[in-house]
Amino acid sequence: MGCAPRPGPVLVNPLGKQQCPGSGAGKLRGYGHEQCGEGTVSDPRSPSRLDPEIAARLKRDAAGLVPAVAQQYDTGEVLMVGWMDDEALHRTLTTGRCTYWSRSRQEYWVKGETSGHTQQVKSVALDCDGDTLLVKVDQAGGACHTGDRTCFDAAPLPAVVVVVSG
Amino acid sequence: MGCAPRPGPVLVNPLGKQQCPGSGAGKLRGYGHEQCGEGTVSDPRSPSRLDPEIAARLKRDAAGLVPAVAQQYDTGEVLMVGWMDDEALHRTLTTGRCTYWSRSRQEYWVKGETSGHTQQVKSVALDCDGDTLLVKVDQAGGACHTGDRTCFDAAPLPAVVVVVSG
Repeated sequence: MGCAPRPGPVLVNPLGKQQCPGSGAGKLRGYGHEQCGEGTVSDPRSPSRLDPEIAARLKRDAAGLVPAVAQQYDTGEVLMVGWMDDEALHRTLTTGRCTYWSRSRQEYWVKGETSGHTQQVKSVALDCDGDTLLVKVDQAGGACHTGDRTCFDAAPLPAVVVVVSG
Repeated sequence: MGCAPRPGPVLVNPLGKQQCPGSGAGKLRGYGHEQCGEGTVSDPRSPSRLDPEIAARLKRDAAGLVPAVAQQYDTGEVLMVGWMDDEALHRTLTTGRCTYWSRSRQEYWVKGETSGHTQQVKSVALDCDGDTLLVKVDQAGGACHTGDRTCFDAAPLPAVVVVVSG
């Protein structure tokens, strides 16, 4: 499992526009892993070129988004949860790189575009009721903006664990 | 990994009320894994007895909810994504059984309470920005209402996978 930045593939912008890695990075808003401003692309959110058959299966929230769970494809680590609208899903499906919608910055966010902590897509699945995505990826370096491998490493909560005997 | 229903622990209702497994199951609303009506408990959502220190760290959506990723603790399978409010998280942390808030039925939902497809809590973690939970569980049987092991088994999406040479 490679934790160092590695050479990435050439990204194809499905909208045919020039991508601007790091655009918007100078003025950060929001919090958490959406805060790093890496690889944001401020294209308009619609219209999306997402396959209409896939779009018809999506059940979006009031903001037009679905949560996307990013999981390391070989170790099974749950790395982070981001949000995708139709266009972010389209880009994720067609570029091989995970692209999210940043709710705090209201921008597309190509994970790792400037930090090098990219997520190369291995597979994408929609859940049974169409309102959640599971994206299996190969994560370079840490997925979390804190430097942690996953966004869940730092804050375990105290939980009762019931042991069933017999 | 046990796929058959197994004897469960005695549940303690943190609100001190009698739980009514199966209540509300006769009149189903919504869709997907929230549709089965298993183990719903129609207690009021507030006030919650969630530890105030944990509550202060939660960043909830407009409906007062955070997504909770349920992952099989030993195999790493991402089983499903449910939603928790403060009280559902409190019950999950204190009873050893995953409890969600059903957005479609507007009820608490003790996973597996009637189907036997319980989720025994192994650990719970909050993510770096406090808006997502990762619950590692021991899932009995299938997590999905369709009978599938996970809610992501049936709907893979076609994705470009970029292979980096060298």
